[in-house]
Amino acid sequence: MHISELKAKNFRLLKDIDIELNSGMNIFFGPNAQGKTTLLEAIRLISTGRSFITNTLKEIITFENDHFFLKANILQNYLPVEIKFGFGESKKIIQVNSKPLKNLSDLIGIVDSVLFVPDDFNLVTGSPEIKRRYIDIQLSQAKNEYLENLKAYNKVLKNRNALLKNRNYNKNEMQTWTEELLKYGTLIIMERKKSVSNLNKFANEYLSIISGNKENLKIDYKTIGDIETDANIKNQFRILMEKTHQSEQKLGFTLIGPHKDNLEFYINNINAKKFASRGQLKSISIALKFAEADNLKLLKGYYPLFLFDDIFSELDETRKDNILSFIKEEQQTIIVSTNHNRFVSQSNKKDCCIFEMSNGKISLNSR
Amino acid sequence: MHISELKAKNFRLLKDIDIELNSGMNIFFGPNAQGKTTLLEAIRLISTGRSFITNTLKEIITFENDHFFLKANILQNYLPVEIKFGFGESKKIIQVNSKPLKNLSDLIGIVDSVLFVPDDFNLVTGSPEIKRRYIDIQLSQAKNEYLENLKAYNKVLKNRNALLKNRNYNKNEMQTWTEELLKYGTLIIMERKKSVSNLNKFANEYLSIISGNKENLKIDYKTIGDIETDANIKNQFRILMEKTHQSEQKLGFTLIGPHKDNLEFYINNINAKKFASRGQLKSISIALKFAEADNLKLLKGYYPLFLFDDIFSELDETRKDNILSFIKEEQQTIIVSTNHNRFVSQSNKKDCCIFEMSNGKISLNSR
Repeated sequence: MHISELKAKNFRLLKDIDIELNSGMNIFFGPNAQGKTTLLEAIRLISTGRSFITNTLKEIITFENDHFFLKANILQNYLPVEIKFGFGESKKIIQVNSKPLKNLSDLIGIVDSVLFVPDDFNLVTGSPEIKRRYIDIQLSQAKNEYLENLKAYNKVLKNRNALLKNRNYNKNEMQTWTEELLKYGTLIIMERKKSVSNLNKFANEYLSIISGNKENLKIDYKTIGDIETDANIKNQFRILMEKTHQSEQKLGFTLIGPHKDNLEFYINNINAKKFASRGQLKSISIALKFAEADNLKLLKGYYPLFLFDDIFSELDETRKDNILSFIKEEQQTIIVSTNHNRFVSQSNKKDCCIFEMSNGKISLNSR
Repeated sequence: MHISELKAKNFRLLKDIDIELNSGMNIFFGPNAQGKTTLLEAIRLISTGRSFITNTLKEIITFENDHFFLKANILQNYLPVEIKFGFGESKKIIQVNSKPLKNLSDLIGIVDSVLFVPDDFNLVTGSPEIKRRYIDIQLSQAKNEYLENLKAYNKVLKNRNALLKNRNYNKNEMQTWTEELLKYGTLIIMERKKSVSNLNKFANEYLSIISGNKENLKIDYKTIGDIETDANIKNQFRILMEKTHQSEQKLGFTLIGPHKDNLEFYINNINAKKFASRGQLKSISIALKFAEADNLKLLKGYYPLFLFDDIFSELDETRKDNILSFIKEEQQTIIVSTNHNRFVSQSNKKDCCIFEMSNGKISLNSR
């Protein structure tokens, strides 16, 4: 899968661009504040329906305008898909092959993407919420069913919590919500468990290569109790729910479930959050991104689009070279960077386009 | 003021180092995870009494040991000062010229330092708490009186909040705490206002140079009400306190005062938090650090020590060169980086030592 053409109008600095993208590597270089990250923001918006920069789409619109517009032509298993994403007057209009989308979430899974931004060591050091969102986005891209189960779980959780707040609730009603919570919660935990296990396997291989065989990675998936086998997840979940029901009634919300899941990362068996250096944290997060792509390939049969913002900062020369060796020709990769020297030498070996960015304008660079 | 010698034992990767530092520029280079940031952590600990990496000093101790130890020899206006900082069995022992320090806060102001870490764009995008701490650390280094007023204010605030939680409080007691809050709060606001104004002036000049005259910076100090002149701060503070007293009684805590202060940053009159690029945010935070040093020089008569961790990541080539031009020979500067090429060319012009770091060991590099 790859984006063949991208148009943007009034999208921050990108006032009017229309570019053809290479199906392999695409490098966009230029000084700071020329619109490089904005380009990734536009592509990620088409991929996930959300901006990774702002929750207020209005802020994206170029000053003195009242709307922005994006269009992407995609080739998915040789079939063309056209996505349009417009926003103005607080309203989003999204069309896929000229048909309006009913829900924003229907956009997920059409253009799969893996995004790396300089903040991504938060995946290792950040809150459990960040880690759950990280797993949820990739599983939602891979499996529509997962996204549906997640939406159902969140709805059940909300209803169950509302009921818990009411001291004189109907016991049958509580029983119904608890059963639903157990049903969807178990499905989510099973998928997350499998996904984290694959992610760990791939990411460990990548980290080993990045570090020159010096570091190994263990990802610990922390969920309800101790789930060595898949068979008894629902049972265990039920027993724990029963045990904590009294506390739940006191506190007024659901204490057990995948909405409390967390990930812990270990380098050479030492807790990475506490003891890893910045370069090591960054290496883990990059290994995770490549692993995420392999995981998506496994589930969907093709690689997602890679979006890389300043992937090399804080890394030493050896690690940089090791990472470059991972980029596969059959993956569409979009790299933005202030410095393109290292990529140019790499690009001689691979199918590559180099673009120069200046004040929101993009031109094909002949080197 | 500069550090002439630094010893560290069992300090994370730095198992046993003893180095002589140059009074000008010192560059420590090496691959990721060799102890570069740890070196800055050690120096900053001697400067501020706190680690910028962890709140748990125990985590710093090298595995299989039970204490760490740091020693720094300093020249302050040609007078030697020796600082020892030991930690073991949950106890800190700090000595200045072989005399034990009673309070950790007495360490502040002896070795003044300005620290830059890659996360520092948080100074622009982060919480008000981060911004207040930023101003407080520099003012505390510059003026012992400020630190004393701040400690007094925080104590008054705590007592006043405890009283507000009690519905049947004694009105005279409340009146006393309110007067104390107004007294110390006014002193803090006046100092912060002056300091931010100077900081803005200096940082604006630096940002202008970094950006090649393309960007200007405005820092907006948000405090109680509208304080155009210094004369009526206490009066305004009092009027606002009276206005909100009813809400305070309901909520049970103090709503008005410098504990709610904030800073807002504008590039070319546009809100930087929302609209600046990563490179621009990083440029602002670097400009702030150099401005902070100028501010300290103004107040104390000499430059603080510069501690720079990976100052150049995410910046374009022009901005990098512009920043290098700021480093003054009379400032002791400690730069850690994976890549030292750019610094080496600069170091030909200035008094400079280059050290190589490998697995916690430091060796003087002949280039």
